[in-house]
Parts: sequence; C-alpha cells; structure tokens
Amino acid sequence: MGVLVDVVLILVYIIYTAKAGEVQHLKWEVEYKRWSPDGKESVVIAINGEFPGPTIRARAGDTINVELINKLPTEGVVIHWHGITQRGTPWADGTASISQCPINPGESFVYRFNVDKAGTFFYHGHYGMQRSSGLYGMLIVDVADGETEKFKYDGEFDLLLSDWWHRASRDQEVDLSSKPMQWIGEPQSLLINGRGQFNCSLAASFSKSAVPCDLKGGEQYAPYILHALTRKTYRLRIASSTALASLNFAIGNHKLTVVEADGNYVEPFTVDNIDIYSGESYSVLFTTDQYYHRNYWISVSVRGREPQTPQGLTILNYHTESASRLPVSPPPVPPRWDDDHYSKAFSNKILAAARSPMPPPAHDRRIVLLNTQNTMDGFTKWSINNISLALPSTPYLGAIKYNLADAYDQTSPPDHYTPADYDIRVRPPNPNTTSGNGIYVLSFGSTVDVILQNANTNTFNVSEIHPWHLHGHDFWVLGYGEGKFTDKDEAGFNLKNPPLRNTAVIFPYGWTALRFVADNPGAWAFHCHIEPHLHLGMGVVFAEGVHRLGAIPNEALACGLTAKYLMNK
Amino acid sequence: MGVLVDVVLILVYIIYTAKAGEVQHLKWEVEYKRWSPDGKESVVIAINGEFPGPTIRARAGDTINVELINKLPTEGVVIHWHGITQRGTPWADGTASISQCPINPGESFVYRFNVDKAGTFFYHGHYGMQRSSGLYGMLIVDVADGETEKFKYDGEFDLLLSDWWHRASRDQEVDLSSKPMQWIGEPQSLLINGRGQFNCSLAASFSKSAVPCDLKGGEQYAPYILHALTRKTYRLRIASSTALASLNFAIGNHKLTVVEADGNYVEPFTVDNIDIYSGESYSVLFTTDQYYHRNYWISVSVRGREPQTPQGLTILNYHTESASRLPVSPPPVPPRWDDDHYSKAFSNKILAAARSPMPPPAHDRRIVLLNTQNTMDGFTKWSINNISLALPSTPYLGAIKYNLADAYDQTSPPDHYTPADYDIRVRPPNPNTTSGNGIYVLSFGSTVDVILQNANTNTFNVSEIHPWHLHGHDFWVLGYGEGKFTDKDEAGFNLKNPPLRNTAVIFPYGWTALRFVADNPGAWAFHCHIEPHLHLGMGVVFAEGVHRLGAIPNEALACGLTAKYLMNK
Repeated sequence: MGVLVDVVLILVYIIYTAKAGEVQHLKWEVEYKRWSPDGKESVVIAINGEFPGPTIRARAGDTINVELINKLPTEGVVIHWHGITQRGTPWADGTASISQCPINPGESFVYRFNVDKAGTFFYHGHYGMQRSSGLYGMLIVDVADGETEKFKYDGEFDLLLSDWWHRASRDQEVDLSSKPMQWIGEPQSLLINGRGQFNCSLAASFSKSAVPCDLKGGEQYAPYILHALTRKTYRLRIASSTALASLNFAIGNHKLTVVEADGNYVEPFTVDNIDIYSGESYSVLFTTDQYYHRNYWISVSVRGREPQTPQGLTILNYHTESASRLPVSPPPVPPRWDDDHYSKAFSNKILAAARSPMPPPAHDRRIVLLNTQNTMDGFTKWSINNISLALPSTPYLGAIKYNLADAYDQTSPPDHYTPADYDIRVRPPNPNTTSGNGIYVLSFGSTVDVILQNANTNTFNVSEIHPWHLHGHDFWVLGYGEGKFTDKDEAGFNLKNPPLRNTAVIFPYGWTALRFVADNPGAWAFHCHIEPHLHLGMGVVFAEGVHRLGAIPNEALACGLTAKYLMNK
Repeated sequence: MGVLVDVVLILVYIIYTAKAGEVQHLKWEVEYKRWSPDGKESVVIAINGEFPGPTIRARAGDTINVELINKLPTEGVVIHWHGITQRGTPWADGTASISQCPINPGESFVYRFNVDKAGTFFYHGHYGMQRSSGLYGMLIVDVADGETEKFKYDGEFDLLLSDWWHRASRDQEVDLSSKPMQWIGEPQSLLINGRGQFNCSLAASFSKSAVPCDLKGGEQYAPYILHALTRKTYRLRIASSTALASLNFAIGNHKLTVVEADGNYVEPFTVDNIDIYSGESYSVLFTTDQYYHRNYWISVSVRGREPQTPQGLTILNYHTESASRLPVSPPPVPPRWDDDHYSKAFSNKILAAARSPMPPPAHDRRIVLLNTQNTMDGFTKWSINNISLALPSTPYLGAIKYNLADAYDQTSPPDHYTPADYDIRVRPPNPNTTSGNGIYVLSFGSTVDVILQNANTNTFNVSEIHPWHLHGHDFWVLGYGEGKFTDKDEAGFNLKNPPLRNTAVIFPYGWTALRFVADNPGAWAFHCHIEPHLHLGMGVVFAEGVHRLGAIPNEALACGLTAKYLMNK
C-alpha cells in the first residue's frame, strides 16, 4: 500500500512540475566532422560542430524540445536520452528499431519530452554503432525551482567519460560481423569530455617510456582542466558513455563522497575512487582541502579487462597554483583490473538514500536471462537465453500499435534458460545459438523481476562484466550473487534500501537481481551497454501498455511496415 | 518526318521484344565487407559477398527484376542502372533524391525494368559517395534472340575499370565538405574488374624502383587475366566506373577497333589505345594475331590529371604460353596526360554507325550550362550557371507527381549563364556561388540542346575535364569546340552522323553540344560523373511528362514529404 501511495505522489509531482517547467527549444545539426579527440585526427559525429555534443541543462519538470537535423550524407540517425523515462512520449526514446524509424539524411525529427526528475544523465546515438563515432553529450537536470538538493556544495564540474578507437565505427561493425569475428581490441584512448592523449602522456615525467605532451591548451585533445577554489566542496557529475571500457575514477589525494547514481539519491559513502560502468552516472562530492600550492591528478583507468589503454588524465587545478604546473606525484594507482572483490564491494555500498521510493514487496513475473557468448554459423554472437537479438527494420512501438504481426516474431522469448542445469562455469556446449526478434510483453502495471545470469564466454575460464541498461524505467537492484541464481537466493534480496538505477552490472560468473514496475506504456530496450556486445545481439525488448497510448507521430513511423501500412491506408 | 518514323519503329521494336523477353529474378544483399582490392585491406560495399558486384547478363527485351536487400548497418542505399533508359519505370532509375527514397537498412526494394537495347552497361551506387566504396558491377545486354550483332567475333571479355582510395568514402565526403575543403587526392590504385596492385608492380622487372608482386593467383588483388586463343577476334567490353580518373586503355602490340559506345553502334575505327572517361563504355575488337609464344600487357593509365597513380595492369594470355609468364617488353606507354589534342582526336573519331537513329534537325530549347568551380562561405563547390546542386530529402519524382511544392525550389535555374560576357579563361570573379535545388522542366516531346561550357577553375590557368552523364536518355553529341560557344558555332554541328551516347566529356576551356528528345516521363539527373564533383554540386535535374505516369510504387516514396503526404492522406 505504501508503494502505491509513493507512485501516486510521484505522478502528482510530475504533473505539477511539468506544468510549472519551461520548454527548452534546441536545434541540433548532426554531421561528420574531422576532429582530434586524442591527438590523432579522426572523424567524429558532431552536433552543431561540437564534439562531444552540447550539454543540455534543465530543471526537473522542464520540457526539452530538440529538433534534430540529420546532416550525415547517407546514414539515418537517432538519439537516446539515457535515463529519461519518456513517460507518455515513448516515441522520443531514440532507439532505432524499437521506438522510432531512423531520421533520414536531410530530414529532421523533434524529440520533445519531459525531464521529470533531477539527476545526471546523458544522451547518445542508438543506431548501429554511432555512439562509438562520438555521438554523445551530457544531460543534466537540476532540482525543480524552489526545491533543494539533499546535500550542499559550492560548485560543480561535469565529466563525460568515453573510450576512443582510431578505426572508424563502421569498420568496427564490419570487423565484428565478419566470419570469423575480428575483435575490435582495446580502445586507443580514454577521453574526459572528449579529450585524451594518444601518443603522449601528461604524466610522462613519472614514466621512463612515455613521451611528454607538447600542448598549448587550444588543441582539441588538450585536457579539460578543473579550475577550483580552495576549501570548497564541489559536486562532480560523472557519466560513462564508453563503448567497451569499465572505468575507475579517482582524484589524487582527494576522497569522493558518492551521493547520486543514475539520477537517484544514494546513502552517501566515501571512497578513494569509484568504479563506473558504461551507461552509469554518479555525483560525487569532494573538498579542495589539500595543500593549496599544488595541482592534483584526475585519472580514469580501465577495469575488468586487462588494460592496454593508457590512463585518461586531467588536472584538478587549485586557483592558488598555475594551471600549467603538473602534479608533483604520479597519477593515482587504480585497483588491479581483475580485482572483482574490489568492484563488488563498491557496488554493494550503493544503497538508496532515506525516503527513496521502495520496491513492491513481491514480483508478478520473474524473467531469468542467461548471458552467453555463442557462435552462429561461424559468426560470433552474444545471446540471451540462447537468442541473439537481431533488430527488425520496423520499430516495435509502431508495429505493436498497428498490430503488424509480420514486423517481428510474435512468439515471446523464454522466461528461463534451458536446460535448467546449464553449467555457467564452462564454455557454452551448444555452439549454435539462434537469432530472433521476439519480445517480452509485460502486463501493464505488473512487477517484474529480472535475474541476469552471467556465464563463461567462448573462452576457457573467462566470464566478462556486462552493464545492463533499461530504457523507460529505473529498477531496484535487489542484489548481486555468485554462481547460479536459485530461488533460495530470493531470501537474500535487499527490499529495505535497494538503490534505484537504470544500469546495473553483472559480475563474472555471478547474477544480479532487478525489480521494476511495468507502468510506462511503450517498447523498451534492455541491453548490455557495451556497444560491440549489443551489436552482436546482447539485448532483449520489453513492451507494456502500448495500446494505452494515443497517436504516435507519423514522423516516427516512416519506415518498414508502418510506413507501408500508413501509406496504403 | 524521317525522325518520327524512326521513333515509331523503335517503340514498336521495344514493345515487341519486351513481350518476347524473359524476366530475370535476382536477389541481392548489399553489405560492407573486408576486401583487399589492391593488396591493402579495406572495406568495400559488396553485393552477395562479391566485389565488384555480380555481372548481369541479359538479352535486349528482357526484364530485370532485382530485389535489393540493404544489409548496411545505418546507411540507405540505391543502385543506378547506368545507360538503361527506364522508359515507363523512372522510379527504378536508382538515384537518391531524384527517382526514389533510399532503401533503409533491413529493408528491400525491387528494381524491375526492361533492358530495351543491346549494349555494354554497368550499375553503381548513386547515394552520397557509395560508388567510391565499390558499389558497382557490369550489366551486359546481348542482342535479342534472333538478332545478330553488326560485327563478328569469336569470344568476349568484360572489363570494369575503377579507381581506389585507401581512405573510406565516408571520410572523403567529410574532407570534401570541410572548410576549407580537403582534397581527396589521386587514387592509390586503378582496378581492372576490382583488382589492382598497390605496393607492388606486375611490371617491376622494367622499373628500377618497383617491388615485384608475390602473387599466387588466389588473392583478391591478383590480376584478372584474359585467357585467349590465338588467331581469334575478341570483343572486349570496357566500362569505367571511376570516381575521378579519366583513363587510357591499351593492349600491348594489339590494335583496337572501336565498334560500340555507351550501348550504341559507332562507325568502326582502329586505334592503338582508347580514352575512356568515367561513365562511358566501349566495345572494341582485337585479334590475337601476334607472336603466339608470348603474353601481352593490358594497361590502364591516368589521363587529364598529372598521374600519381601507377598504371593498372593485367595480362592478355595466349593459350600457347603459360599464364604465369610476364610479357617480355614494358607495358604500353600512354599518351602524355595533358595531351588534350590526342584526347579530342579520339573523341572526334566516334561517329554513329550507318542506319543509326538521327537527331531532330532543330532544337526547341537550348540550355547553356556554365561549369565553374566556386567557393561558398569558404566551402568549395562546383556550380552550373552559378548554382551548386544541393539535393533535397524528398525525391523529385514523387514531389512532382503529388505537387508537393515545398519539396524543392519551384523556380527553374537559368537557361543561360550571366553575365553573357563571362570570361571562361580566368578564375570565377564571383567568389560566392549559391546552392539550390530547382530543376529544369522540359516540355514533353520537345527537342533540347544542351551546351556544356567549360571554364577556368579556382586555380590559375586550370580547366578540368568533366564527363557529363544523362539519366533516362541517350543524347546525340553534335560537336566539341574550343573557347566560348556562340550561336555561330551551331553551323558546325554534326547532324549527319552524330554519335548517340549517355556520357560526353567537356574538354578544358571548351564546349560540348548535345541534343536529346524529352520523351521519357520522369525526373532525370544530368551531372558530372566524377564522384567528388557531383558531391560538391556539379549537376542539374531535368523532368518531363511526370504527370503522364501511372502510380509510382509507394516503396519509392517512403521518405520526406511524400511519406508525410501519403501517411496523412
């Protein structure tokens, strides 16, 4: 009963602030542009000539109205507003094949949606691997007018983290889809606000082999320096849009107090560094209370995969010191890349702040999703319950709305993997997965538990980290576990203060339990946020209450069978 | 009167053979694929896994039915059937923004059209610069059943010539559209049937600096060898799909007798080598009458631009000699790249064969098109009568059909350049061109003369070659001239035996006069066939009789304003 009241209160709040909020009109042109994210000239997808794209800054309750104009020569484009639930506007979720038809070259599409909750979000391409071409930017929602944050700070910095390859994402797509697959390898650089250093190091003086950077500051790959006053507390908003890398973030000599995760308040806790997976965002507080006549390293390091990419670096500059002076000590040393205990300990520290929305006490449906790497006719795939998602050309949202049964497989994928005694510790015994495009149709308003079950990859003794991201909803993270999930594990679920997130990781050979309420009419992707994994089929689609929606704008439907249906009507 | 009779006879012939012809059903998947066209691994656009795409072989009167399935991850695609007039099927012409909407990823489109005339044709991408990614192949139409060619031969070889860059066409597009423009430079290789050698030479033994090729024959870049019997006459069909290069083609020690150009019979003439510009095709006859215990070079060399690309080479192998033995003499030496007299002499040799269709004796409308290179706000453009073509997102054919006036500028571009005393010998005095998308609407059935007038580029003392290609029609080439065309030049028009072509070149500082009858309902591109020039606006669009057409398939209209109009109807 308490849950119902919460939900009602939240809805009232949304309606209230939506009316109170302002409408931000933005006009964005998306185009390819020569850019040097890390010192080597590449081609990026820029927005209004900028890489990364412009930061959107709004207040909770505002309406964002982005007219997106596609200036790519031959490619469609969409933009996903990561973490925004798109309640009432599922066609604005910006996922090709799911929420809308890609915007054709030369055409435009208006993304109009409400940002109903304060928090740190970002946006990115969600078509092919365009995110890997640099189509991303930050989306920051401040508390509504008259509201105050739960914590105090004097200033703010916003950092969007990403990884960068010199090989174009189109070629990466070709490589991944080759038979046999050609793995894209580790990124050449880690970028902080789109800036990294490929063939030089800011910290060369602490290394025998590194080449110092000869930077004047105006270069596209010059670091984004944080200029801070001393003895102040700053809020640092950090989001990760990496294609592959899991990251560890640190500021030398400074503690970080985590206060927000994916737009939700968490019970504050203080650490030396944080792990951040692709698709996640955090706010951390830090205080400039160290020796004032210094600068300090800010470092981003690869976690979970054996690092072959140099640390991403920039500088926290105390205003009492020249910004051009490098720190006197080496950059922070991250935890060992394969120290899973460290990562799990961090994840387990993230708990909901007091008075956060509570999960319903029980689930109506449980979907257990086995994550496996497989082969299919010699191609490498990632599969969920032995189905590798092959997205259809007609987006689900319109196909469901107009009952176009030919648009996708009408059979639901299974709620449980088979055989039940599948051994997650060994390579998949079934070398051939299948591909499919069936979806999970959820009863409107039902409470759904998803158990993400990790397993061994195709490689002996390897199980990888996967950060799973859900569109259209936040979910409660009820717990992480080792080995195979069994019904007995339910007893250990955290129903007291589980954190609300939109992204949660599964650890090697482990499981992660999530709960959400299927109360947002639309068709919603749920997928591993690692770009090449999604490209190889690592995702599922949920749909609920689509027939409750009013008209879907035709602009979202001008492709595939919806176009055919509506043009021939 | 004689002309009218001819036209009627041709139409009767078409209807007759169309009924008699067969329908060829082809299913093509277009996808990116790793490929090594010249020894360096690249990514090409392949059809059914092949590069170049499969050769279509049909008989005059056949119907070709290609179901094209777009397997590119994020790009639309179309294919233009170069030289096929698409009478009655203008939506199958395969030109994005003009005849149809691009085929979306995951979707398919059926190109169904009649091949009404025997000849040597080819097909290629016509969206963005996808042709430069290798989307091309040959289309050969034999004479109808029961018909015979005008010349005799014992065997046939088919060669599709192209040029290749290691920089992806997407990046080339970005470079060309940059401010200032970054020129793509000369191609790294010339390809014969998709095969060239980049970092080695088949003819290394005749050069001090070249590295010999270590080829076993199975490599993707191993040359396509012509295995011939001795003392036979062969027909060699040659088409050029180059993005930039004008070419000279030769077979060492063998004379070439030109018998066909762009699918039209020409009065046979014999030469040592032929010039071939992008968009052109020829049939030449040669006889294997040389010393039998030898192989002979086949060479392709750059014309018209200072060559920085090695000759493309392969071998004519006499069956009396091992195919692995290289010729004993060096490859043919082409004419000097800047010997325009040589090129003009060749072009002037091309005259219609006896009993070819004759042009109407007079024109109803004359359109004079000044070709200039300009700048526009710091961007480099090519302009026609000071307008650089910026293609609209709604294809003209559907926009005209449904009277969607917002789809493009309803004002016609000018029939003549201004000022009339424009000095073609100097750089354009007006640094700023305009861009536009207006079209030339032609009276149905009228006779149109087009005078292509060349001029100086933006560079002092430079005027470039441009091969202009017309869709939907052949035209008669009435003549080539030096300097500025004036009405007095009309007296020199060849109305006796002008060759029918679909592509004609303008020489530096010269003019070329063309005549055609606007009797094919549709919207038709007329443009420089150099891919970067078209990308920078070097084209115009003609339209005639669109309202005479029946229904246009909706599949060709699912974009832009036609989709909007038809979905909201």
